[in-house]
Amino acid sequence: MHAPDTVTRPTMRPYLGETAGYRSGKGNPRDFLERCLADLDAWEPKIGAFVTLSLDAARAAADASSARWRDGKPLSPIDGMPVGIKDIIETFDMPTEQGSPLFVGYRTGRDAASVAALREAGAVIVGKTVTTEFAATVARGTRNPWDLARTPGGSSSGSAAAVAVGILPAALGTQVIGSTIRPASYCGCYGFKPSVGGINRGGAYDYLSQSCTGTIAASLAEAWQVAYEIAIRAGGDPGYPGFAGPSSAPKAQKPRKLAVIETAGWALASAGAKQAMTDALKRIAASGVAIATRENDRKVAAVEAAIAQARKLSADINAWEGRWPLNTYRALDASKLSGPALERLKQAEGMTPDEYRALLRGRAQARALYAELAADVDATVGLSAPAAAPVGIGSTGEPASTVHTSYLGIPAISLPVLRDEGLPLGLQVAGFIDRDADLFAVAAWMESALG
Amino acid sequence: MHAPDTVTRPTMRPYLGETAGYRSGKGNPRDFLERCLADLDAWEPKIGAFVTLSLDAARAAADASSARWRDGKPLSPIDGMPVGIKDIIETFDMPTEQGSPLFVGYRTGRDAASVAALREAGAVIVGKTVTTEFAATVARGTRNPWDLARTPGGSSSGSAAAVAVGILPAALGTQVIGSTIRPASYCGCYGFKPSVGGINRGGAYDYLSQSCTGTIAASLAEAWQVAYEIAIRAGGDPGYPGFAGPSSAPKAQKPRKLAVIETAGWALASAGAKQAMTDALKRIAASGVAIATRENDRKVAAVEAAIAQARKLSADINAWEGRWPLNTYRALDASKLSGPALERLKQAEGMTPDEYRALLRGRAQARALYAELAADVDATVGLSAPAAAPVGIGSTGEPASTVHTSYLGIPAISLPVLRDEGLPLGLQVAGFIDRDADLFAVAAWMESALG
Repeated sequence: MHAPDTVTRPTMRPYLGETAGYRSGKGNPRDFLERCLADLDAWEPKIGAFVTLSLDAARAAADASSARWRDGKPLSPIDGMPVGIKDIIETFDMPTEQGSPLFVGYRTGRDAASVAALREAGAVIVGKTVTTEFAATVARGTRNPWDLARTPGGSSSGSAAAVAVGILPAALGTQVIGSTIRPASYCGCYGFKPSVGGINRGGAYDYLSQSCTGTIAASLAEAWQVAYEIAIRAGGDPGYPGFAGPSSAPKAQKPRKLAVIETAGWALASAGAKQAMTDALKRIAASGVAIATRENDRKVAAVEAAIAQARKLSADINAWEGRWPLNTYRALDASKLSGPALERLKQAEGMTPDEYRALLRGRAQARALYAELAADVDATVGLSAPAAAPVGIGSTGEPASTVHTSYLGIPAISLPVLRDEGLPLGLQVAGFIDRDADLFAVAAWMESALG
Repeated sequence: MHAPDTVTRPTMRPYLGETAGYRSGKGNPRDFLERCLADLDAWEPKIGAFVTLSLDAARAAADASSARWRDGKPLSPIDGMPVGIKDIIETFDMPTEQGSPLFVGYRTGRDAASVAALREAGAVIVGKTVTTEFAATVARGTRNPWDLARTPGGSSSGSAAAVAVGILPAALGTQVIGSTIRPASYCGCYGFKPSVGGINRGGAYDYLSQSCTGTIAASLAEAWQVAYEIAIRAGGDPGYPGFAGPSSAPKAQKPRKLAVIETAGWALASAGAKQAMTDALKRIAASGVAIATRENDRKVAAVEAAIAQARKLSADINAWEGRWPLNTYRALDASKLSGPALERLKQAEGMTPDEYRALLRGRAQARALYAELAADVDATVGLSAPAAAPVGIGSTGEPASTVHTSYLGIPAISLPVLRDEGLPLGLQVAGFIDRDADLFAVAAWMESALG
């Protein structure tokens, strides 16, 4: 195991602030990319964030973008932005390996809806980032750049690690339990999980009803912009209204009232994390924002009760929904599936459709309870994880703090404004379904109040 | 063009009634399959129902099924049933070509959720049936066995043609406009389009929010059983409760009241079709079933108004939702996309997310209006198509009679109990979302009342 890296401090590299000079020749996307690639050279051997790199194509795309900016004709504000694609999402020019030995070198020849949209917006696709097996639990070796002995979190492991060290201003993640918010928390990035159905998952090996494509980014503005540029071109999942809002990140808006959602993660939280959260809430309250808690608010208590088992209920939902394709993969070559994958399949095969329907009814009831909070509060807050990233890269860490946002289908943001053990810890701000823009406005205010 | 085939009359071949003797050695699945394959030899050169056949594997599967029946251990009532798979649905052992030159020979190495479930139930996968390009409009040469100069309908062209002539007791179809009910009507089969989300579409190249996997079959019992055996193993689409009901087709139940939904198709209906429908309604009324129409029922009139534009609205919804993957296919090789596919893509690229959201709101309103009918009637009825299959195999015929069931997400059955020009014409019976079993009970009564 590597010793903790105490020499180079991870530093993120935002992009949107750079482009103002591009029209006048002050910098250009190719130069920006080369700075990213210098950090790739320095960091990648240590952190292992990428499965596949496509540097020739990235340089060509950056050059084309440089020409567009020079001509005053960028395709979007993210034209030229280097991005990474979680390796469960298809790209026509790279394999999509899903963190599985079964899919090594597997090519589909097409872009996912999100990737096609990113290319239409001029983004520069740098590579495919490491995911756990099928975006579930089995980690694939990526290390946390803040301490190489620790997990970066998962399942969007590579996306978070690469953004944390400035290789990428933004990358795609997905979340069905905690796979965007948790790695963002552990790596000190901004993480955004949209409302369920918010970003078109077409062409992602990602079929679960709670799952959602999101962004891990170097700033709140970047997290917004990448989601926005995808959504206006590719929409949400078919049948969903999809992520919507203004053409750049919403301005900070001070909330009237916030609700603290402790989740099952609070009982597991480290002393440092609890202290950090308590301090943050004090500062928020001192700014004149009312705080509802399970102790002083009946509705909050009802929501806490409804999500107390969110982790198990989500795992059960995912198991049933994940029976396929695991069953066809097992028929193909069971030896290339992990033990946990085979266990999930076995669980699914012991379930009935009626059990699944009961799980869906429970989830719908919990969502309805949570929705009632919208009458009183502008957002809910909590820890993005119970603590800083744990030591060890075999596990991707504890999801108890964030699974409820997946279960409830609500949009969530991890703000890198807390610390635990001197390492990054996210403050999780969550909103209401299909009100992602309102959530960003609150998160922007909280960042300025706490940053 | 072939001359009309007036010698051999298409005859369907039900399976479920055969299996009673299998335990005692009176027949077996292999013998049944061989009779199917004799019809394949006789008909396939004329009708062109299959893209790919897998006869060695089918014979081996039939032999294995024969052994299970002999041992008294069939996997399900459809163990040994020869079935066909519409060629937008993945099979591990055959290509999935989607009716597109872009996908000739394309293999994914896995089974779709529905196909994996069929194999678990012991069904014998005979081959992949012809679909129009991407299950949309461009026909791929299949002919109607009742008159080879006519279309079998589409997009589930091969499934309907193969079932009509007894090559298969059942086959999978899909429908987003009229692609299951219409070919069933034109070919004289039983067609079943479940409630939206009813059957898991995992592993189908089928992403549209109105689309639904269904069955085309030689009997109502077969249409039910195949859907049931898939659903108990694979469930519905993730997040949907999925097709549910008893373990064999519901018994006939005389409805209290039915509503006639004329749809935009009535104005296009042939004199023969109108007469056939009028006669059928007279017989139903004579049985003591009340009939609501737009003339005598305010709610029916409201539904008719809400679905008057269902075809255009559905086409618009499909266009937006189909932007991907057509855009990535165009980038790959535009020369291999049809003109209509490129047109749909162009339409999509002229649309905004807000336009799509408005379409979804309209659809939700129409669904709510239709749902109100459930208080008064047990099902709605109409023609499955405005007429018998039209002459010519370039077009798959008119969808105006059936698009509303896709738009409304309601379950629908085509019963082959009408005639037009001496050719098959379906009576369409439609129910209410997630009440597929109630629909089958009404359809069974109507079949006995009209058959």
